[in-house]
Amino acid sequence: MNNRVSFSLLYTFFHCQLWMYGGLDSNVFLQYLAWVTYPVVLITFSAGFTQILAPQAVGSGIPEMKTILRGVVLKEYLTFKTFVAKVIGLTCALGSGMPLGKEGPFVHIASLCAALLSKFMSLFGGIYENESRNIEMLAAACAVGVGCCFAAPIGGVLFSIEVTSTFFAVRNYWRGFFAATFSAFIFRVLAVWNRDEETITALFKTRFRLDFPFDLQELPAFAVIGIASGFGGALFVYLNRLIVQFIRKQKAINRFLMKKRLLYPALVTLLVSTLTFPPGFGQFMAGKLTQKESLVTLLDNRTWAKQGIAEEFDYIGQSQAWKHPQVNVFVTLVLFIVMKFWMSALATTIPVPCGAFMPVFVIGAAFGRLVGESMAAWFPDGIHTDGTIYPIVPGGYAVVGAAALSGAVTHTVSTAVIVFELTGQISHILPVMIAVILANAVAQSLQPSLYDSIIRIKKLPYLPELGWGHHEYYNIRVEDIMVRDVRYITLNCTYRDLHNVLLTGHLKTLALVESAESMILLGSIERAQLQSLLSLQLGRPRRLEYIKERATAEKKRLSVVSNPSSDDGSHRASQEVRFQVRGHCRSRIDRMESHPFHLCLMGCNLRKIAPQTTERIAEWEEMQLDEQVNFNNCKIDPAPFQLVERTSLHKTHTIFSLLGLDHAYVTSIGRLIGVVSLKELRKAIEGSVTVKGVKVRPPLASFRDSGTSSSENEATELHKLWDRHKSMSLPREHTPSESDEKSQ
Amino acid sequence: MNNRVSFSLLYTFFHCQLWMYGGLDSNVFLQYLAWVTYPVVLITFSAGFTQILAPQAVGSGIPEMKTILRGVVLKEYLTFKTFVAKVIGLTCALGSGMPLGKEGPFVHIASLCAALLSKFMSLFGGIYENESRNIEMLAAACAVGVGCCFAAPIGGVLFSIEVTSTFFAVRNYWRGFFAATFSAFIFRVLAVWNRDEETITALFKTRFRLDFPFDLQELPAFAVIGIASGFGGALFVYLNRLIVQFIRKQKAINRFLMKKRLLYPALVTLLVSTLTFPPGFGQFMAGKLTQKESLVTLLDNRTWAKQGIAEEFDYIGQSQAWKHPQVNVFVTLVLFIVMKFWMSALATTIPVPCGAFMPVFVIGAAFGRLVGESMAAWFPDGIHTDGTIYPIVPGGYAVVGAAALSGAVTHTVSTAVIVFELTGQISHILPVMIAVILANAVAQSLQPSLYDSIIRIKKLPYLPELGWGHHEYYNIRVEDIMVRDVRYITLNCTYRDLHNVLLTGHLKTLALVESAESMILLGSIERAQLQSLLSLQLGRPRRLEYIKERATAEKKRLSVVSNPSSDDGSHRASQEVRFQVRGHCRSRIDRMESHPFHLCLMGCNLRKIAPQTTERIAEWEEMQLDEQVNFNNCKIDPAPFQLVERTSLHKTHTIFSLLGLDHAYVTSIGRLIGVVSLKELRKAIEGSVTVKGVKVRPPLASFRDSGTSSSENEATELHKLWDRHKSMSLPREHTPSESDEKSQ
Repeated sequence: MNNRVSFSLLYTFFHCQLWMYGGLDSNVFLQYLAWVTYPVVLITFSAGFTQILAPQAVGSGIPEMKTILRGVVLKEYLTFKTFVAKVIGLTCALGSGMPLGKEGPFVHIASLCAALLSKFMSLFGGIYENESRNIEMLAAACAVGVGCCFAAPIGGVLFSIEVTSTFFAVRNYWRGFFAATFSAFIFRVLAVWNRDEETITALFKTRFRLDFPFDLQELPAFAVIGIASGFGGALFVYLNRLIVQFIRKQKAINRFLMKKRLLYPALVTLLVSTLTFPPGFGQFMAGKLTQKESLVTLLDNRTWAKQGIAEEFDYIGQSQAWKHPQVNVFVTLVLFIVMKFWMSALATTIPVPCGAFMPVFVIGAAFGRLVGESMAAWFPDGIHTDGTIYPIVPGGYAVVGAAALSGAVTHTVSTAVIVFELTGQISHILPVMIAVILANAVAQSLQPSLYDSIIRIKKLPYLPELGWGHHEYYNIRVEDIMVRDVRYITLNCTYRDLHNVLLTGHLKTLALVESAESMILLGSIERAQLQSLLSLQLGRPRRLEYIKERATAEKKRLSVVSNPSSDDGSHRASQEVRFQVRGHCRSRIDRMESHPFHLCLMGCNLRKIAPQTTERIAEWEEMQLDEQVNFNNCKIDPAPFQLVERTSLHKTHTIFSLLGLDHAYVTSIGRLIGVVSLKELRKAIEGSVTVKGVKVRPPLASFRDSGTSSSENEATELHKLWDRHKSMSLPREHTPSESDEKSQ
Repeated sequence: MNNRVSFSLLYTFFHCQLWMYGGLDSNVFLQYLAWVTYPVVLITFSAGFTQILAPQAVGSGIPEMKTILRGVVLKEYLTFKTFVAKVIGLTCALGSGMPLGKEGPFVHIASLCAALLSKFMSLFGGIYENESRNIEMLAAACAVGVGCCFAAPIGGVLFSIEVTSTFFAVRNYWRGFFAATFSAFIFRVLAVWNRDEETITALFKTRFRLDFPFDLQELPAFAVIGIASGFGGALFVYLNRLIVQFIRKQKAINRFLMKKRLLYPALVTLLVSTLTFPPGFGQFMAGKLTQKESLVTLLDNRTWAKQGIAEEFDYIGQSQAWKHPQVNVFVTLVLFIVMKFWMSALATTIPVPCGAFMPVFVIGAAFGRLVGESMAAWFPDGIHTDGTIYPIVPGGYAVVGAAALSGAVTHTVSTAVIVFELTGQISHILPVMIAVILANAVAQSLQPSLYDSIIRIKKLPYLPELGWGHHEYYNIRVEDIMVRDVRYITLNCTYRDLHNVLLTGHLKTLALVESAESMILLGSIERAQLQSLLSLQLGRPRRLEYIKERATAEKKRLSVVSNPSSDDGSHRASQEVRFQVRGHCRSRIDRMESHPFHLCLMGCNLRKIAPQTTERIAEWEEMQLDEQVNFNNCKIDPAPFQLVERTSLHKTHTIFSLLGLDHAYVTSIGRLIGVVSLKELRKAIEGSVTVKGVKVRPPLASFRDSGTSSSENEATELHKLWDRHKSMSLPREHTPSESDEKSQ
């Protein structure tokens, strides 16, 4: 319901701006001031508010949701603060009239609602405490976000699946439909209650003729729209990334902008709104129209131009904005497309809650309209040859273009469904489908989707998709990409080993093997668990205990050896030592807690302490470190995911995506021989994707026969390993050198 | 393209029947004969042809595809023979005019095409040899099947996902769209080329008014259609299963039908076509119309009845069939619904290639029409209150009813999309969505889907879905359902152990553990691999070698001991022995091959052989059996899937579905403690699903705290196990009794 409120607030803003602008028609300068000030203030407020309250609310939110649904915990993105910042920031940003979208933020807002609802419900216990249930809630929420944004329940569900999931559980499908249908229903019922509509209809209802929507011979034109949109979509993603990277790289600019965080949004807004100022350049690109109005006029079912000349067509209402006394409709359309293109790419880099779907959708519609108008001008009586004249419907082209360009930017095909639901007409289904598929084919082979691009820019922990047509994924094996130098701990290791392992590695979990010789994988232990084990062994309570013991012993010794007068002195000395040691301990423990990976064990701050005591503490530490680790109170994951050397990259990727893994151990008949984490997988996939044309074969791949694998191959025949295993079979401890060599 | 051919053949059949029927209008009896003979002959031929060529072609094919996409290999369902049988059988079955559908068989046919294409392409090597690629091909093929059946690419993709997948890889999504769009395009382009249509339009194009498709106050009526359809759908599935089970259980009927396999189809066809005979009872239920014609008339945008009386509405063409001089349109509709309902449920049990979607769709449309006509009769001037009169559109109700009933029977929501694509109008999106969701909610809580019902009837190896709202899935753990008595082999086992294990168990794969004491899981070996190991050890070559050796030794002994004259005799005897033994060996090996689990080792057919030789062979066998197994040439899967005791049933189900597992081992810190196969999982799920209201808690569940699990809990704290493990840590062999106890 919050979405609804923000929605109506938004319209209030729009009307305000137009009213301000309209009321000042005597003076162009005042008009300009009113036209420009309004968006600048709103965007600056939005940026500032978001920055202060919750910087996580910036941007679309779909990349983050994709990462969260992938299984990565990004808790700060689902807090109440973020919710408030997103709703208010989005309302202001949309109210500014900048070319910004709302479908990404709506997805995020719906997910925030779901997360907060889950958190609230979990107070009552029961099913809501379950983590996988929360993921289901979030998936349904994503569908709601898109669904109520466009009043497109089906398209919403499909779009949200495409942009957020890698593998989708069909059992969650109806949940999404249920939620999205109700959200769309409420959204449209509000319009009826507000007396805007008589009954529930589509958001951007079109009125194309039903009996003959398009001719078969028009299909090539639709295909052209699809292919061009594919290139356009890839260009948009590229441009968007370029702008972000340019601003980040230019250190001078960056330093300046960092200081004045609100300057960048204000400048961009100023530039964009100056260019769209209706009496100025805006007159050549229908600058007066809001996004919604542009879309309504672009989807109009009448032809604007015939025979290349802008005729006096029956302009009603908003459509007049496209008409300019001096220039052609085609020029207006081209200018609109070009200007909006870079404006949208630029505007979506502003740090406010905003999406890019709607601007891209409008640009696509304009491009489709341009092609449609050209076709109408070229074939004034339509293409159909059999008697009846069916004129070309440029609005249909606009629908196709909108679906194709937005599909290309987001790498989805469900935009086709969204346009049907948005326009309330499905007559152009085949042209739309063909254009969307072609646009996707082109765009996917050139650039990642906008959301994946943002994921890369933001460096979110996400696994890239396998591109299609890259057959080498079936030929690359885990053994080519795995890290052979696995950090492990053994069942009978000492605390010193533990300490060394913790100092060197960076993985979140460590493998537990039976012994360094057998290397049989028993499970994995989280780093934090090991750290607590270690700090338990060397921590303050133990240390104090030891020092107390030492002090007592010292006291005894002194009391035996020295005279009564020195007794008091020795007591003082002992106390001093204790104090110093305690201070030393504390600083050390503090350091341990703040830098838990780095335990500086050998004296650095020991200068103040008497050399004897220091030595003793060091001695004690050494003793403690040489003890065998007691794993009793340690949580062990007894079945970490295991792969085999010959598992293909394709299969590995599938398993990682399916199960949301972070890493997997590579074993060979129970023996740990390597580890693969998301990092290696990402490197392997990107390594072979980014280098175009050249197959980057991993170094070991060439030693293998190049025939593709059947799944049977993956049940490895490990003669050699097996032989070794057999030879040392039960008393395996005898051949350490050989095993050590292997484990490296 | 084969689908196309069958399609046009089908129409030829229809026209034949109508022509025969029309040409004989002088004599009712001859008319009846013509009306009845035609379907009976076609159905009987179809049943016979399918039975002889490939009985796998019988039925829908969707349940089988669901099972195959789940990862189970059902090779016989994807052969060329099945393809031929399905295409020809389906053509005849549809041509008969019985209430049979084609969408299931189309899915199967498209999958057959894909499978055969893959097989053909794999001749050229490369990517097509890969198994997972084949699954992707099949998934796309399923989309094509539905897509070209209804010219509904989007609905086709979604429907096929819903009915065949549990987890869907989004990266396969565009493949489905691509394939389905082209199939739908070709399908509709053929209609244009045949001059049936001027351009590409929807298959059952409707012409409802766009400006005011329905009033908000009509929504309750749509909801009623949804709920009633839910009950109706569940009843249909139940009725269908009841008929199958009744015929199977009645032994007398069954024996009779088994003898005369073609009698059942013929009888059912006779019954159905007698009842639809237009001059007979058929006149009261529009028996003259084919399914397609019924649907076209039901989706008509004009009102048939007003104020409860069948007026002289403008009957054009086929719609006249619904008009009867004596009875009301309502009576005709009710009779149509009731009769078609049981007829369809009965007809789909005939052993011919056929689906149930289309008949159900038509019944749903008729039910919707009935409600719509009633509404139109009740509110002759529409419901809208504000001035303008918008009469009720009963055709819209028919669309809603069709989507709702077919959605209820198949447990899908994508039927909503299919109806939009089928009718070319999306104006009724909200009523359709609401009705479909309600119908699904009702049907899913009462009965499995039609396809799941068939899976159960056919006992296909499929994992049932987790019903929704069953929270106990999160509380049941693997330890409650796993089989603790795991069949395993050890690394140092003898052939005798191998033999014993093979004799007792039935699982396809066996666990390989380090030793019976340590129970550390090293991998799994397929049963077939072990059998070949065993037969290698005891097989004919070895045996012959041994006998040859024996014979040589015997000969030597004889030649030394006895006189020269007996030399020849001994040679003969030796040869005889060799022959006999060879015969004996062969029979034994044959038996081994046919009953590989049962090696009768001790003499049974040994009577003919000299007792001495028999003894020696037995002795040799004993010796061979006592040797240690050499696993060198054995394919070992070094990383079988492992679960942990505390993994929840919900998670286990998810993992099994995601990875298409058949079984998984349960380990505790590397030690094998149990195994879970599909069987146990199915039992656990069905056990708690079928018993309504009563939570069937597994026996061990009550010992556990009832709080729901967080995923952290699943990283088990196994203090006790761990202690034991530690105590026996490296020289583990010392405590066999304790371990044995645990491993049981």
